[in-house]
Amino acid sequence: MKKTVLIVFAQPEPASLTRQFVDLARDTLQGQGHEVLLSDLYAMQWKAVFDEQDFPHRADPRRLSFVAESGHAWRQGHQPPDIALEQRKLLSADAVILAFPLWWFSMPAILKGWVERVFAYGLAYGYQDAGNRYRYGEGGLQGKRALLSVMVGGPGTDYSARGINGPLEQLLFPITHGTLFFAGMEVLPTHAVYGTGHITAQAVDAAKAVWRRRVERLFDDVPIAFRPQNGGDYVDGHVLADHVAPGQRGLDAHVAQHGPAWHGEPMRRELPA
Amino acid sequence: MKKTVLIVFAQPEPASLTRQFVDLARDTLQGQGHEVLLSDLYAMQWKAVFDEQDFPHRADPRRLSFVAESGHAWRQGHQPPDIALEQRKLLSADAVILAFPLWWFSMPAILKGWVERVFAYGLAYGYQDAGNRYRYGEGGLQGKRALLSVMVGGPGTDYSARGINGPLEQLLFPITHGTLFFAGMEVLPTHAVYGTGHITAQAVDAAKAVWRRRVERLFDDVPIAFRPQNGGDYVDGHVLADHVAPGQRGLDAHVAQHGPAWHGEPMRRELPA
Repeated sequence: MKKTVLIVFAQPEPASLTRQFVDLARDTLQGQGHEVLLSDLYAMQWKAVFDEQDFPHRADPRRLSFVAESGHAWRQGHQPPDIALEQRKLLSADAVILAFPLWWFSMPAILKGWVERVFAYGLAYGYQDAGNRYRYGEGGLQGKRALLSVMVGGPGTDYSARGINGPLEQLLFPITHGTLFFAGMEVLPTHAVYGTGHITAQAVDAAKAVWRRRVERLFDDVPIAFRPQNGGDYVDGHVLADHVAPGQRGLDAHVAQHGPAWHGEPMRRELPA
Repeated sequence: MKKTVLIVFAQPEPASLTRQFVDLARDTLQGQGHEVLLSDLYAMQWKAVFDEQDFPHRADPRRLSFVAESGHAWRQGHQPPDIALEQRKLLSADAVILAFPLWWFSMPAILKGWVERVFAYGLAYGYQDAGNRYRYGEGGLQGKRALLSVMVGGPGTDYSARGINGPLEQLLFPITHGTLFFAGMEVLPTHAVYGTGHITAQAVDAAKAVWRRRVERLFDDVPIAFRPQNGGDYVDGHVLADHVAPGQRGLDAHVAQHGPAWHGEPMRRELPA
């Protein structure tokens, strides 16, 4: 069945691995008969800074509240055209791929600014103007899939279970859990290529073969088992019930079943079979 | 002894709690006889996007490598004036406070872009052009202190040990550990105010009293016990030695002694004595 996939990417160099992977994903998905939408943030000269210019018709012209004005602009349809266009693309998509180089263990600022401006109150948080009633598995983006494609300069060992940087999937928790799953999306295990600072042509070819298979299974792979807020694991939507993951605390406790990637073993898992 | 403190903040609303806390920190530090430098990113119209404009004299005009060009520009002194000025402020500071509202469990894009553009290769990473030889406790910013002042819209329970968002200190690990400690700084436990979406004037007053004490102890408080890369805990600078935190994995393992904040109990710790 034909699906629509939005690829948002943050890397201006056409020859970069990030861009090569975006091109490969586009070709693979189109080859499967899907429609692909692209948001090339650098080429679009995407406005990264979320500021008062994004609220041309203020609810309160005296004191700027981003949450209140975001909700007001979303409800009233008074958003700048660049934001509204990205929201239309997002809402038309069955899956979203965010492709970026890992900078300071997170997204580049231009992509973070895409999230801040596009993920409006009423859409991606405060769904139905109901505060935190719908989040983490429910919300305006429910039913969509999400996948991160991340290029990592350093070696995979630094991101292994006891590697000095910490496991990549835990570093990306604010994005996968706190942003994408928060807004209702099903988030697939992150796809990463490590050691891109010094990678051979042969390793690039092997990495592309792995990536092609990940993209082919975009609608088949099993998402990260984040616990839905309203699925019974949380008391009143805030804190894990005592019987859930008893004794566990921290980020770990919010993943019902830990795949190998969670503890920093993505390399092994992603090797060609 | 007179010190210099740089406060970088990302909140354009003068009446916001973030700004009130910046003002209070400035006044408190100046009252102690210290010099305070401010970087008001919104007022400065800080360029958030790290792009080729930041490399006016390219080492390789054909293919853009951010790492290579960042190092080239830093070494040759060919950086844009706004970057060079922020680096001078940073290098003159004995401590840095980053003050921001928590947006999608991280920094606002404008502040992320400050890090990306100011934390050059050769300064904040790749120190002495030696790759990863000096990082995590050593590097170009060694000897400086860092502190995050974070305003959190949601309730503190959501960030408690088993709260649905995850503990704040773990969510901020990419910033505290992966950015500030990476570049050599000593990072203090994060100072957060929760529930700022609906806070009473009385609670604001109480929160300010707590913040004032934190600021007064900026040069006295004990930093987070992140393990230095070259202190003997890591084999070859990459993976924890077997005898260090045996059996532990993930982010937890890189903190030698977990204060209460690590597991999501900052509220209790920060209550007035």
